[in-house]
Amino acid sequence: MDKNKELPHCPVATTVELIGSKWKLIILRELLSGRKRFGELRSGIPGISQKVLIQNLRSMEEDRIIQRQVYAEVPPRVEYFLSDLGNTLRPIINVMAEWGLSYQELVTSVKQS
Amino acid sequence: MDKNKELPHCPVATTVELIGSKWKLIILRELLSGRKRFGELRSGIPGISQKVLIQNLRSMEEDRIIQRQVYAEVPPRVEYFLSDLGNTLRPIINVMAEWGLSYQELVTSVKQS
Repeated sequence: MDKNKELPHCPVATTVELIGSKWKLIILRELLSGRKRFGELRSGIPGISQKVLIQNLRSMEEDRIIQRQVYAEVPPRVEYFLSDLGNTLRPIINVMAEWGLSYQELVTSVKQS
Repeated sequence: MDKNKELPHCPVATTVELIGSKWKLIILRELLSGRKRFGELRSGIPGISQKVLIQNLRSMEEDRIIQRQVYAEVPPRVEYFLSDLGNTLRPIINVMAEWGLSYQELVTSVKQS
């Protein structure tokens, strides 16, 4: 990680600073199931543009949450995967998944009532 | 909640849709400790503009995560607080706080090494 990066005092704000955006959270979700190529990420994340995906991947790489591996092939193959640090974010995505599931069930029950 | 709002199929995306933004997560953090007036929220969230705070509060109110109470005083007093649904988001903020704390400790140990 960048030694000179100033972190907020509050732990929640620290986490939000690193992954508190729609796309970063969705990229995390995608990579929790294993390493992915750029094209796989793009097709797994509906609505994201190539530019925004690149920006977010770069930012997450700078923050050492994800890593990139380039294979010397023609055309070059690039794969992204969670670093050890990135893997520690798993409980956050899991608890968001649990909440989302309960919310979906709630909305479904309201629609049916 | 809005019965006609389309939810994403994925539970993580559902949660991200509702609270996957820097400011919404920080507003949640602020309201977890109790109801707050608009001015208190603004001073508790450094860097947020009045316009952006209003927009996010309105969006969270529409999603039934927070509620607003207006007291008939002069000048009118307005307080925001978590709804029952909003309170169920507590575990997400808690796990983000835990992760942020570990990350801060990690960064501190790297700086010292």
